[in-house]
Amino acid sequence: MVEQIRKNFSSDNVVPACPAVMSALVAANADAAPAYGGDAWTARLDTVVADIFERPVKVFPVATGTAANALALAAIAPPYGAILCDDSAHIVQSECGAPDFFTGGARLVSIPSEDGRMAPDALSYMLDRLPADNVQNPLPTALSLTQATEWGTVYPPARIAELAQLAHARGMAVHMDGARLANAIAHLGCSPAEATWKAGIDVLSLGMTKTGAMAAEAVIFFNPALAEQFARRRKRAGHVWSKQRFLSAQILACLEDDLWLNNARQANAMAQRLASGLFRHPGARLLYATEANEIFVALPHRAITHLRAAGFTFHDWHTPPGVDGTVIRLVTSYYTRIADVDALLETLAAV
Amino acid sequence: MVEQIRKNFSSDNVVPACPAVMSALVAANADAAPAYGGDAWTARLDTVVADIFERPVKVFPVATGTAANALALAAIAPPYGAILCDDSAHIVQSECGAPDFFTGGARLVSIPSEDGRMAPDALSYMLDRLPADNVQNPLPTALSLTQATEWGTVYPPARIAELAQLAHARGMAVHMDGARLANAIAHLGCSPAEATWKAGIDVLSLGMTKTGAMAAEAVIFFNPALAEQFARRRKRAGHVWSKQRFLSAQILACLEDDLWLNNARQANAMAQRLASGLFRHPGARLLYATEANEIFVALPHRAITHLRAAGFTFHDWHTPPGVDGTVIRLVTSYYTRIADVDALLETLAAV
Amino acid sequence: MVEQIRKNFSSDNVVPACPAVMSALVAANADAAPAYGGDAWTARLDTVVADIFERPVKVFPVATGTAANALALAAIAPPYGAILCDDSAHIVQSECGAPDFFTGGARLVSIPSEDGRMAPDALSYMLDRLPADNVQNPLPTALSLTQATEWGTVYPPARIAELAQLAHARGMAVHMDGARLANAIAHLGCSPAEATWKAGIDVLSLGMTKTGAMAAEAVIFFNPALAEQFARRRKRAGHVWSKQRFLSAQILACLEDDLWLNNARQANAMAQRLASGLFRHPGARLLYATEANEIFVALPHRAITHLRAAGFTFHDWHTPPGVDGTVIRLVTSYYTRIADVDALLETLAAV
Amino acid sequence: MVEQIRKNFSSDNVVPACPAVMSALVAANADAAPAYGGDAWTARLDTVVADIFERPVKVFPVATGTAANALALAAIAPPYGAILCDDSAHIVQSECGAPDFFTGGARLVSIPSEDGRMAPDALSYMLDRLPADNVQNPLPTALSLTQATEWGTVYPPARIAELAQLAHARGMAVHMDGARLANAIAHLGCSPAEATWKAGIDVLSLGMTKTGAMAAEAVIFFNPALAEQFARRRKRAGHVWSKQRFLSAQILACLEDDLWLNNARQANAMAQRLASGLFRHPGARLLYATEANEIFVALPHRAITHLRAAGFTFHDWHTPPGVDGTVIRLVTSYYTRIADVDALLETLAAV
Repeated sequence: MVEQIRKNFSSDNVVPACPAVMSALVAANADAAPAYGGDAWTARLDTVVADIFERPVKVFPVATGTAANALALAAIAPPYGAILCDDSAHIVQSECGAPDFFTGGARLVSIPSEDGRMAPDALSYMLDRLPADNVQNPLPTALSLTQATEWGTVYPPARIAELAQLAHARGMAVHMDGARLANAIAHLGCSPAEATWKAGIDVLSLGMTKTGAMAAEAVIFFNPALAEQFARRRKRAGHVWSKQRFLSAQILACLEDDLWLNNARQANAMAQRLASGLFRHPGARLLYATEANEIFVALPHRAITHLRAAGFTFHDWHTPPGVDGTVIRLVTSYYTRIADVDALLETLAAV
Repeated sequence: MVEQIRKNFSSDNVVPACPAVMSALVAANADAAPAYGGDAWTARLDTVVADIFERPVKVFPVATGTAANALALAAIAPPYGAILCDDSAHIVQSECGAPDFFTGGARLVSIPSEDGRMAPDALSYMLDRLPADNVQNPLPTALSLTQATEWGTVYPPARIAELAQLAHARGMAVHMDGARLANAIAHLGCSPAEATWKAGIDVLSLGMTKTGAMAAEAVIFFNPALAEQFARRRKRAGHVWSKQRFLSAQILACLEDDLWLNNARQANAMAQRLASGLFRHPGARLLYATEANEIFVALPHRAITHLRAAGFTFHDWHTPPGVDGTVIRLVTSYYTRIADVDALLETLAAV
Repeated sequence: MVEQIRKNFSSDNVVPACPAVMSALVAANADAAPAYGGDAWTARLDTVVADIFERPVKVFPVATGTAANALALAAIAPPYGAILCDDSAHIVQSECGAPDFFTGGARLVSIPSEDGRMAPDALSYMLDRLPADNVQNPLPTALSLTQATEWGTVYPPARIAELAQLAHARGMAVHMDGARLANAIAHLGCSPAEATWKAGIDVLSLGMTKTGAMAAEAVIFFNPALAEQFARRRKRAGHVWSKQRFLSAQILACLEDDLWLNNARQANAMAQRLASGLFRHPGARLLYATEANEIFVALPHRAITHLRAAGFTFHDWHTPPGVDGTVIRLVTSYYTRIADVDALLETLAAV
Repeated sequence: MVEQIRKNFSSDNVVPACPAVMSALVAANADAAPAYGGDAWTARLDTVVADIFERPVKVFPVATGTAANALALAAIAPPYGAILCDDSAHIVQSECGAPDFFTGGARLVSIPSEDGRMAPDALSYMLDRLPADNVQNPLPTALSLTQATEWGTVYPPARIAELAQLAHARGMAVHMDGARLANAIAHLGCSPAEATWKAGIDVLSLGMTKTGAMAAEAVIFFNPALAEQFARRRKRAGHVWSKQRFLSAQILACLEDDLWLNNARQANAMAQRLASGLFRHPGARLLYATEANEIFVALPHRAITHLRAAGFTFHDWHTPPGVDGTVIRLVTSYYTRIADVDALLETLAAV
């Protein structure tokens, strides 16, 4: 079994929860606690997160990233609104229309990019195509940015700020899908505040599951006015746990002593090591800069077969026209060790 | 602390998760596992549930009862549909419009009852008011019954069957909100099959959280045709866990060796003991028969103050016009012990 | 044919459009006009309505009463909101869930009344059951009142004011379904302003179809802030006509020289004459006061058969338990003449 | 005034309704008629349309094209569905999210094309990206094709058939936005049947407003099974007129004696004449083949100013990168005369 996990590069959500998270769950199970968020763990969330982000916040725990994103977007996009985002965004590609559902039919307007990072020019161009005074188009009310991006790249905060400024100038609110924000911060070496609200983010889906939790994400409002009635939206979406302490305890455990960031640093370092090795491999072609914990690499079919035969697991990805070989995705996590990476690279070298 | 839980009668969701559930979570955390339900725990769900319910089923785990109910109803009620239910139903009173949201605006049509158990006559009458050929009214497509009811009473399966027959005759599907089905089965002494599909239930929200889980409910389709595309609805509602093994493991732990039913038996027995004591107390008036683990009792204001001063916790409930005193709700759980009940009764006797 | 219409008491929407409306349509058809409401007719709407209602307004024409109601409610009720209304309201009984659809799943909370007029006590009681700080219930955000009511009675403006005050105290907005507001004003002898915003109405669905138009209703915002983005909601509901002049021209024609009110006066007078005659008829029992143009009367089965045999048309209505005979609804319109009413009464007398 | 209409090339919905339509409205106004579609005009619709399309059909009149499209799509696309369409489609570009709203959040997946006509290869590619067994993407359930296209081109029926076949192979239903189907049929010289169901169309939005009606479109189901409960969807969208005869009478008038097609022929002929003239004009560049009644032409800024100064009206259009000058749209209608076209061309020649 342990053999298996060492060779599993399919995702950062196939690994176990951190020991610290499991201990926190056990500790939270000792006694009775008020239901529906009236518990002591939930009571601490706002303060703990405010400390880390250096600003008053409103925090709402939920169990999945899709819930966090879709609920956050519903708070800032009315049914007649448009949500602008990168074409690669999880909300477009992987959530089966959750934002469309939660908003009551707002339109996702996706903007193509080279590497998952939206270009300010492209955003400007699209905003010009969606004038506020033409009722034939939905009203742009939300910008959603993914950090780290779906292609494993990371926005510099200055780019975020530039995009957010364009959005704010149109009266829009800015959401960050931070399923892998920990990895982005680990890469940037900046503070959580610099990565988010100081760059113009109004509401954040902060992922904990990929960085160590069992199932926990936090919707964080930097602009508390936007959080009004969010509690009702969350309730009516079935995303309030009766025993909510078990959600909040996970988040607290991840945030304590920078566990979330340390875990992300480990994942990133392993991705760096892996990318360096692949870069030196003839026949391998890395599609994007490796800045977080995801690698998209084109490999000859023979190499892929060989890796799989040796027990390694990973996902095939969509291979764009014009790319030789087949694209696979390799994901590292807090659980990945140097020996795991090296084993893969050695197996590949033996092809 | 432990003192506290012994005096807590506010709800069956204020207590810890069962030791067996916590052990199962720890065990599921040992190694990597495929994400999004591709894991070994989820793979066993259909079979395990089919064994218990003596029939092939499709099982979908989710974290909350509201999610289970609203998703199940969306599978059987189109946006132009009507969902008939008892006026006391959780889906009407306590879910902030979740069914309205998940169905895209189907109408909850609530039918008054004496004690939470819908009367066949009342259902017939309402169905007559909603003819299929009058497009001015929504089309009745779903009947939702709560077992045990919100007032702590239990439907005899024959009554369920009678109601289900009326619904089926109109082409409707029948849903059971089984947040406390374990308590109902414990009371009835019937089999899970007799309590559900043999009485005409098509889809069941089976609650595990109130009977021992941390956060886990199962949507169970007895009619697999209704389950088609349910997976997509669940995804787009943000109710698919990436690390789904942790949901499925809880459910398996609860079902193993009848833990869910044994827990419910303990809760029911404690409720019986409490109800008997209250019945003998002058000034106390039980509003409904105590058949599950909830007691609604009217007490003089002085008695309530005295109990609270002694450290007992419970919720005030809506006091209907014409009832003397104030109505409180007392809930027992698998965690409640004889000494806990007796302590409350003795404190009350001392008023 | 003309024989037929003289004996038709089924509804005020079975009669032809007024000659003035038809002339207005023909006149509007003379030349090109900008599409989508950029025309000269639409340009006049706000001013003309403002003059009549003695206050600046925002006016949006649509073709049906259901559209007017549902769009207006969507402007004031978020998806997590509750809309309080009388149990007899058209939005509850006859629009197949249009408000549920347009709001994205807001909950209609209906309050029973004697005669279609909501009692302030009943509203207070229900508001107490829906506290703002309990996320388990939807948030009361809209009150909808029907004037004249569905039972042909009329609210005194003071009663409207009392109800509106209760709603405003909770931060709710107040909608009036004025499908038959003309009849109510004709009965009250008050000004349009007194019947609406002076009594606390924020947004009005003003019916023109029942009082003479072909297909035209106006959504009128007395509080222009609520109208923001209403144009987008109307567009995305498919309720913007490309040749909108033909909607606006109808409304202008109805409003000119008090045609809408004069038509309503004629309808009311005919209803009064009919009600007086029925009152004197042994065996007939009027269920409600006749204050507008609808009469609900219980008649012996034999009398009903006789009327139908003589060529009269009208609808059977739901006969409440405890009422002798069968309830029918008789509706008069601007088209009804004294001879038409007398013919029905004479036929009835002959039974 | 009449001067004005002669120089108005902005749209085919700025012109008056046909005399035949106005006469039909006046004729329909002679007497009482049952409400909500129980009238004699509506009763004839199915038969008249079936005759024209050579097949049994279910016909539902509505007042706007957006309503027709969005309601038709809601009948074939569940909330978790994807609707595939050309990137230029009216449902994507000009309806403010109506399909998103009516379907409860289905996703519009738009496919780029050269000239508004979707390529089968492009459809295949996109279908491959949306596998049925991956719940992360919405399920492709509807294909929507626009005939004539938004760029004034016309699909050959064989191309429609090829696209429909790909869709049907995936179990999808095929919708045609036929706002200008009359113009397409006039161009193709085929039968209405050949242009639609014989090529695989399941449900059609048939536009009458642009070809002569005041405000009338018909949703036509060639597959009657898809029409089940459509009446309820239409009702709850507020698109059932109480005096529905006035909708149906317009449609009957347009269909009688091929008026709709004759009107379209006139519009097309005028567009041909105009396009030929523009083609010979140095500095003018036609962007697409002129096959219906819309022309998109790039002109030097000076020419455009000159035309406007001379009283001609038309809309600027989005000018794609790389096109010299400014793109304008010129639309002809049944009302356009040879002299009108020649006047514009002469004015242009004088620049």
